[in-house]
Amino acid sequence: MAVLILTDLLEAPVLDRALEPALQRALDGKAKPQGALGRIEELALRLGLIQRRLKPAVQRPVLLVFAGDHGLTRSGVAAFPSSVTVAMVDALLAGEASANAFARVVGAEVQVIDAGVAADLSDRPTLVHAKIGLGTADASMQPAMTRQQAEAALLTGARVAEDALRSGADLLALGEMGIGNSASAALLMHRLAPAPLDDCIGQGAGHSPEGMARKRAVLAQAAARSDAATPLDVLTQFGGYEIAMMAGALLAAARAGVPVLVDGFIGTAAALLAVRLAPAARDYCLFAHASAEAGHRLMLAALDARPLLELDLRLGEGTGALLAVPLVQAACALLSEVADLSDVLEAAG
Amino acid sequence: MAVLILTDLLEAPVLDRALEPALQRALDGKAKPQGALGRIEELALRLGLIQRRLKPAVQRPVLLVFAGDHGLTRSGVAAFPSSVTVAMVDALLAGEASANAFARVVGAEVQVIDAGVAADLSDRPTLVHAKIGLGTADASMQPAMTRQQAEAALLTGARVAEDALRSGADLLALGEMGIGNSASAALLMHRLAPAPLDDCIGQGAGHSPEGMARKRAVLAQAAARSDAATPLDVLTQFGGYEIAMMAGALLAAARAGVPVLVDGFIGTAAALLAVRLAPAARDYCLFAHASAEAGHRLMLAALDARPLLELDLRLGEGTGALLAVPLVQAACALLSEVADLSDVLEAAG
Repeated sequence: MAVLILTDLLEAPVLDRALEPALQRALDGKAKPQGALGRIEELALRLGLIQRRLKPAVQRPVLLVFAGDHGLTRSGVAAFPSSVTVAMVDALLAGEASANAFARVVGAEVQVIDAGVAADLSDRPTLVHAKIGLGTADASMQPAMTRQQAEAALLTGARVAEDALRSGADLLALGEMGIGNSASAALLMHRLAPAPLDDCIGQGAGHSPEGMARKRAVLAQAAARSDAATPLDVLTQFGGYEIAMMAGALLAAARAGVPVLVDGFIGTAAALLAVRLAPAARDYCLFAHASAEAGHRLMLAALDARPLLELDLRLGEGTGALLAVPLVQAACALLSEVADLSDVLEAAG
Repeated sequence: MAVLILTDLLEAPVLDRALEPALQRALDGKAKPQGALGRIEELALRLGLIQRRLKPAVQRPVLLVFAGDHGLTRSGVAAFPSSVTVAMVDALLAGEASANAFARVVGAEVQVIDAGVAADLSDRPTLVHAKIGLGTADASMQPAMTRQQAEAALLTGARVAEDALRSGADLLALGEMGIGNSASAALLMHRLAPAPLDDCIGQGAGHSPEGMARKRAVLAQAAARSDAATPLDVLTQFGGYEIAMMAGALLAAARAGVPVLVDGFIGTAAALLAVRLAPAARDYCLFAHASAEAGHRLMLAALDARPLLELDLRLGEGTGALLAVPLVQAACALLSEVADLSDVLEAAG
């Protein structure tokens, strides 16, 4: 297989809408009142377009959880220390995190990727080793990463996704673990939505009023340091390795014509980055849930996205994306397994 | 086993809240920020209380689809003829309806019950035969059923649920099929919420403006015919056999300490009936989704219910209840399978 280069990744194919009339006719002909399955019908139509067939199917959903640390935590943007990232990576590897429990419920496989945890994790055999660096630099003081690191992270995320697709994954859910990453995501949103910085900052994993004030001050300092506005510059200045890899994974899935479930605030920041890099990637994104994190709704609006679930989640790890997997499968089953009304009425004489 | 009588059924046990502090501590101690799983945590707490254990589990969800016809259709309240009820019962029995497709996705068993279809279905071997009558009478002209039929339908629904529970069901989802039943449900809501009749009437399976005007006029005529206000009187005057059986099934599940997923507008009318008969039954109800049917939100408010999903569904069959099954299982898995934060941090040293 040819080595992937960044320009390949930016060529997400425009969603082919040729099947739309046939898919709509198929949905309208099912044994139910027209439109009575609401958003499941919209989802079914989109899945048919992405998979380019009238009977879409999702048999092997895979959750990719990208883990990385953030130099911003040294300036006090997070309520938990960076060491928690390692602890949660180990919990994920042990199958004992919330994402593992939810993945078992929905029948999804979980892969955990070291995108850039600030610790040597080379002795974890089931971890996917893709570390770009030992955490990013403190973006309030200097660029979070180099341009080379930014590009490497995007490409590595794409490679991880391609490996999963080659192994048979037909739906990717993207999750993350990284103390401080809601701060990095807020900066990405600020520049890429774009939106006023204050509207992009939320509680993350939890904060006192003093902690929130600190987070706001540190992010204002970071934003003042650079006027980066293009996607790759913004990623370099303010991003995280795990966020970059999620964006790369999303772009690879779009290239391959595979739908992606986007999780909460961090996942949506990664999707925003991917869509600003390659606008056609937008149509391969299935937005799973509206998170309780302030700013998420505004970022979803910037992507013209209306998520499937609204459960006040603010955990990450891909937990919200996983809970939407059965909705995706139900949408496929509607097109693939439900009888046509005409056949049902004919059989009844 | 003793024969169930109506007074037994009305004795839903008050939910025992003794475990609430321990369950809340367990949730707060999990490897995640406190409260970060939002409504999944609320659901987990409720499931722990209903099952009276710190590690709840749902292994065998069963959808009961009760089918019945409505004399009101003879006055033109529905957009489809009653014969569609039989056709859809056959589609459900053949595994080709939307509910079957969704049930396969979430791993639920489906049982179809003839509560009162206006046709002889005795030759369908996989149908649960529990017919109270060949459809109800036209409630715009006379009581929909006799008091004896109303009580028999409640008790029969309870018996069907008890059979499912005895076979190992640990979560009941309640669905229905019955042309005209949104009209009956609107009348039940009007008297039992209570709410102004016009606020209770929606499109059902679909209507032209003329059809809606006709539905409103017929239901106003029905409401003017009787001032019934107590639950059994309202059921007798305006109810449907399938709605009565859903209420009976819900009451039986509450008696047995088993959670029930309530579907959309019709299912919520059945839940309203059950809760007005036995208020303690409310706490065993898990409201699955906010339907697109006008009036559903108001009826949910009358039950102080905030549903889990909002997907613009208006199909029935229990489709919305089924889509919430994985959320219930995720909530169980959170309590039963996710590590404690203290253990995760300790393991990380």
